[in-house]
Amino acid sequence: MKVVVGLAELRLARESLANPMGLITTMGFLHEGHLSLVRRAVQECVSVGVSIFINPAQFGPTEDLDNYPVDLERDLDLLKAEQVDLVWTPTEAAMYGAGYQTWVEVEELTRYLEGEIREEHFRGVATVVTKMFNSFQPNRAYFGQKDAQQAIVIRRMVQDLNFPIEVIVCPTLREADGLAMASRNSYLNPDERRAATVIYRALSAANELFNTGEREADGLRAEMVTLLRTEPLARAEYASVADPETLEELHGPLERALLSMAVFIGETRLIDNMTVGEERGSYAVDD
Amino acid sequence: MKVVVGLAELRLARESLANPMGLITTMGFLHEGHLSLVRRAVQECVSVGVSIFINPAQFGPTEDLDNYPVDLERDLDLLKAEQVDLVWTPTEAAMYGAGYQTWVEVEELTRYLEGEIREEHFRGVATVVTKMFNSFQPNRAYFGQKDAQQAIVIRRMVQDLNFPIEVIVCPTLREADGLAMASRNSYLNPDERRAATVIYRALSAANELFNTGEREADGLRAEMVTLLRTEPLARAEYASVADPETLEELHGPLERALLSMAVFIGETRLIDNMTVGEERGSYAVDD
Repeated sequence: MKVVVGLAELRLARESLANPMGLITTMGFLHEGHLSLVRRAVQECVSVGVSIFINPAQFGPTEDLDNYPVDLERDLDLLKAEQVDLVWTPTEAAMYGAGYQTWVEVEELTRYLEGEIREEHFRGVATVVTKMFNSFQPNRAYFGQKDAQQAIVIRRMVQDLNFPIEVIVCPTLREADGLAMASRNSYLNPDERRAATVIYRALSAANELFNTGEREADGLRAEMVTLLRTEPLARAEYASVADPETLEELHGPLERALLSMAVFIGETRLIDNMTVGEERGSYAVDD
Repeated sequence: MKVVVGLAELRLARESLANPMGLITTMGFLHEGHLSLVRRAVQECVSVGVSIFINPAQFGPTEDLDNYPVDLERDLDLLKAEQVDLVWTPTEAAMYGAGYQTWVEVEELTRYLEGEIREEHFRGVATVVTKMFNSFQPNRAYFGQKDAQQAIVIRRMVQDLNFPIEVIVCPTLREADGLAMASRNSYLNPDERRAATVIYRALSAANELFNTGEREADGLRAEMVTLLRTEPLARAEYASVADPETLEELHGPLERALLSMAVFIGETRLIDNMTVGEERGSYAVDD
């Protein structure tokens, strides 16, 4: 496994990797969720690259950029064990050097949910993913369903900007008690860790309600809110029942939905989601 | 020479072209200026692609999108004669289909000059060029110095977004009387065509003044304005003496500058520029 820091080094190393090449973009502090993406890429691609970069452009001014967990040595050990070919750990100065001023914006899908609360978050995500795509030139890129809106935004960006890349979205990995795996789970103390399971329980309750016939958006939303209120350590920022394609909030009867929420457990902000109903085909990458 | 309309066809045709591949993005109605870029690419690259697409996203609501000149048959004959390998003529529906919502913005360099007057123009340019880059995946892309700000914006975008592409800026081609070649020159009636030479005369006068020792920005600017006022059919939108790297307007003593102007000749808006003083190195594409 080759680990490089400079862009010129990366391009050189990439040249010797055969296609199809799969890319997983990460902010490090890897967990089984990341590794499930890596394993899928290793299975499906001839070569696999991973980026590790805590992207300041996707953090708001009051967010946890300075405290974001880091363990590069462990990350590299984990990736090596998965037979990853190439890891890029660029510096912030190289990614956003003097005079940096170019941004990629996906306008409509980012008005809702995370985008409504985390101003400029998706601008930072779309921009850094564009940079990663142009740096690695992968044939396939793997994202987690855990960050559902991110996956939808990136798919849209790839289609709109004609990136010659297939976007593959992989299922959320969960702990035994249902908590979605996330680097930020490391912030939770034991009480909070127990309380955090309310997120999965709320999503599961709404999913269950859907499966028993409830088709009213407001009924599903109320079910999530009711569950979340049972946990004193939880403070929901939103609990949403949205159109899984446009991400617009739904009201009235529905056929399918993205159930999603952002919940503070103490000081830690966690997100999770489930989809209910049949999926339509995803965006085609080509015309 | 292969001419394709669909993106899937383009990708397939591109696969069989050898690298380095050079790209020239155009809005068609080709003139010797475009052909000089094509010839340079044919000289320097193993294969050459050209896009012909009148990009609505770079026209303002009151601009000449609906009247922009078209002659595809002639364009294709000209490109064939230059030994171009691949021409893409995408439809507007394919480039900006239903739900299109992704934009590339270069923020600072686009605040000035053309960007100050033509709101969203450079957003449209940066976005369509990104789409062309991702569609053709060229190794080199050729732009004309005639659109000086565009070339600077694209260079910045390529550096910021890590496109693996070398940007090559080629000299402005001029008619015998100095008028910069431009598709929009076709709008001029004979009187306007004669009047349009005032643009070159104004730039040349300021250039001459610089060469005889004038180093005050305001002196150079005044020289251009004085010349432009001698022509009753000309109405200048701006006459600028700007920093050739940041594009900020200069005042006081200078070592080098981008002299540029936008001038209405009757209803036709024309732009042109010259640089004075020694150039610094251009942006590096790699780190």
